[in-house]
Amino acid sequence: MIRLHPMSFAVLLAGSLVALPLRAQTATPDAATLARIRDGALATDWAYQRLGDLADLVGPRLSGSPGADAAVEQVAANLRSAGLEVRLQAVKVPHWVRGLETGEIVEYTGRPKGVTQRVILTALGGSSATPAAGLTAPVLVFHSLAEVEAHAADVKGRIVLVTVPYDQHLADNGFAGDAYGQAGAPRFRGPALLSRLGAAAALVRSVGGANYRVPHTGATFFPDGVAPIPCAALTAEDAMLVERLATRGPVTMKLVLTPKTLPDADSNNVLADLRGREKPDEVVLVSGHLDSWDLGTGAMDDGMGVTAAMGAVALLKQLGIHPRRTIRVVAWMNEENGGRGGLGYFDAVKDRLSTQVAAIESDFGIGRPLGIRAAVDAASGKALEPVMEALRPIGAGVLQRREGETGADIAPLQHAGVPSFAPLVDGRHYFDLHHTPADTFDKIDPDAMRRQVAVLAVLAWFLAERDEPLKSISP
Amino acid sequence: MIRLHPMSFAVLLAGSLVALPLRAQTATPDAATLARIRDGALATDWAYQRLGDLADLVGPRLSGSPGADAAVEQVAANLRSAGLEVRLQAVKVPHWVRGLETGEIVEYTGRPKGVTQRVILTALGGSSATPAAGLTAPVLVFHSLAEVEAHAADVKGRIVLVTVPYDQHLADNGFAGDAYGQAGAPRFRGPALLSRLGAAAALVRSVGGANYRVPHTGATFFPDGVAPIPCAALTAEDAMLVERLATRGPVTMKLVLTPKTLPDADSNNVLADLRGREKPDEVVLVSGHLDSWDLGTGAMDDGMGVTAAMGAVALLKQLGIHPRRTIRVVAWMNEENGGRGGLGYFDAVKDRLSTQVAAIESDFGIGRPLGIRAAVDAASGKALEPVMEALRPIGAGVLQRREGETGADIAPLQHAGVPSFAPLVDGRHYFDLHHTPADTFDKIDPDAMRRQVAVLAVLAWFLAERDEPLKSISP
Repeated sequence: MIRLHPMSFAVLLAGSLVALPLRAQTATPDAATLARIRDGALATDWAYQRLGDLADLVGPRLSGSPGADAAVEQVAANLRSAGLEVRLQAVKVPHWVRGLETGEIVEYTGRPKGVTQRVILTALGGSSATPAAGLTAPVLVFHSLAEVEAHAADVKGRIVLVTVPYDQHLADNGFAGDAYGQAGAPRFRGPALLSRLGAAAALVRSVGGANYRVPHTGATFFPDGVAPIPCAALTAEDAMLVERLATRGPVTMKLVLTPKTLPDADSNNVLADLRGREKPDEVVLVSGHLDSWDLGTGAMDDGMGVTAAMGAVALLKQLGIHPRRTIRVVAWMNEENGGRGGLGYFDAVKDRLSTQVAAIESDFGIGRPLGIRAAVDAASGKALEPVMEALRPIGAGVLQRREGETGADIAPLQHAGVPSFAPLVDGRHYFDLHHTPADTFDKIDPDAMRRQVAVLAVLAWFLAERDEPLKSISP
Repeated sequence: MIRLHPMSFAVLLAGSLVALPLRAQTATPDAATLARIRDGALATDWAYQRLGDLADLVGPRLSGSPGADAAVEQVAANLRSAGLEVRLQAVKVPHWVRGLETGEIVEYTGRPKGVTQRVILTALGGSSATPAAGLTAPVLVFHSLAEVEAHAADVKGRIVLVTVPYDQHLADNGFAGDAYGQAGAPRFRGPALLSRLGAAAALVRSVGGANYRVPHTGATFFPDGVAPIPCAALTAEDAMLVERLATRGPVTMKLVLTPKTLPDADSNNVLADLRGREKPDEVVLVSGHLDSWDLGTGAMDDGMGVTAAMGAVALLKQLGIHPRRTIRVVAWMNEENGGRGGLGYFDAVKDRLSTQVAAIESDFGIGRPLGIRAAVDAASGKALEPVMEALRPIGAGVLQRREGETGADIAPLQHAGVPSFAPLVDGRHYFDLHHTPADTFDKIDPDAMRRQVAVLAVLAWFLAERDEPLKSISP
């Protein structure tokens, strides 16, 4: 049963003549159904089990890898078995393959005879290879890209370490994304800058708040015309060691990195529809990404997001709740090192963008959900109140309405004006595990998973059911 | 100035005839000097800097390695520069060298085509090698050595995982040693048991409370007549993965381990004396061990202990406080995989054990000191009150009088009746870092280091100064 707001009768009576000021007061999906969806999500571990399948049976699934192919196949099969209409959407993806990776501090002041210091590092996605026998060069240590630029003339032929500590205090206060942006800047932009300046190799300090000599990988990008150079993340501990040794005198390192960049590979987004009962051509996306970095098993980034999205729509199907519009699960390919899945989907819909009513992406990990992030205008924020009310009993009633990218894969849609959403989650320790070997299934709290399914299912059904689409914050 | 307890005069007058009940009431080292030593320790970072030298410049120093030789040399030089009388005591040590180490789960129920699961593991000290091309076998999972014994007939030719989680709750309550003993039992005794039963290889779950896919190494021992087999510690995460996959069906793993056991190597304990002013032949040992596991840089285990011991005696020398007896720094070699340093020292003194008045070893890491552990009798516990009083202002005033080994290297002395002591420290997170790659200098809190030097220096001087030696709890 749909409970209509009294004003809605006026709309029905008045028709389109008085539509503009009044259409915001359209049919509100009823609270009983929102509560039923929420409670249904808390009563099933289907999504958690699918995450077990993905993380344990497939494991790492970097674009182009056998794991990525297997993930497409497994997720499509699980969505079919949930009764959804599944299709694959072909995309070409970068295909970068990790090789050997070792690092050694071979010269430093105070070095005892016969002793060198082994460091733990991991190549950044997009890194080129060193010679197979290794690359040995003096090391320069900087603390920001600005400092690199100020010493541009000194960099040629050197191994350059740019080390910015992760600000856990920011993360502890709810600004993990900002902390990541600050500490990640040397990774995102450092290697390209250092390539232009003639450096032999680029090193960064691993991002994240962990304290266990864990390397943190991730993509770096070399624009057209900038030749890739070897680049890697040292663990935080090893970055600090190099820095301490450099205060004692000159430091020389030897790096062996043998990654390969192969021709682009064929891959797929997985799309699965719960077809709308009235407006099947209008679509609400509920999504996460299918690819993962290769060091861990991608249980958190983004196995949890993609299987929570699967679970949310499978739940609606199971409950027999057929929304007005189509709700589409999208399992994105290639979020981590290219974003080709998001771009490919956008290309396919860009000529009929009005059919894309809303896009939700879950890609911020395993923390307990606190509410919803929404890049929508103020009126839409108000309109979300029934959703927040339904989620408040499970502690997920905060609406954070803000600009900025809501999800990497849905960013092309967002930038084109599609309202975008994400679960707002406890991200204080997201970057402790993110892109590290420690991103594994045991870290997943089944209760947090159920709550995240609840958030996604409640929000998706609301958006698909409501008469009037919400509006983006920056159309 | 030595402040005499009134009863002491009685002792002096009465001589040995009434000695037994009264001799416990002997000259007590004065509180002013105890406080001066304590405060002196808090005012210097000499020990912290020496730890920086050891961990950063030498780094890993497993017995027989170039790092172990370098550590002997560096520590001897630093002790000489502190004005102590230094000599090396030759010992033969086991010489085990880590090789390649990889693990892969190659068959399991639900395995997608072309996919296998790489695990993170590290060989146990004493492990034999697999064939260079690897060892592939079905896996059995057990949860205790008793369970292994109950299934002894099934073990032949298998890779056997014995997985016991580390009980962090015990550790959080001050029982980290007990938690280690429980979780470590499969490592200590499992490989020898499994060798006898014909297993192809032994796997254990990494010990410790860390949660970052960090492998935890350590020694295992094969008694004479028991052939070593390949054995390794999986990370906690990978042990859980194998266990989960085993609940889905049969699991097969491939292990590549190429460690070598070489002939015993020549090495040394480093001994450094602050000679006693009245009884130079009576000795109080203040010690830590010089060797470390090879994965980290041994900053905590036991760089901190050995450099704190160095710092304690260097401090007394610097303050011009010459004790009645000799205080001897001992930097033990080979605590980690043989204990040859402790045994060698014991052999050298066993015929004049009464000269060994007390033995202190610091080998429980980087936590803030809370007091002193002492394997002494009740009267000796009471006699320690001035020490506890001097340490209470720095939160280190707890005396934990108990049986059980006080330190691995001083255990031969302790078992022969020498009173033994250790700093009592916050060990709640000791095993998060212990024997892992994450045992690095950045983890050391300079303030905790100063406090530990204070504990060692105050205790050592008290024991060296006091008329009457204390008595062991189990003579």
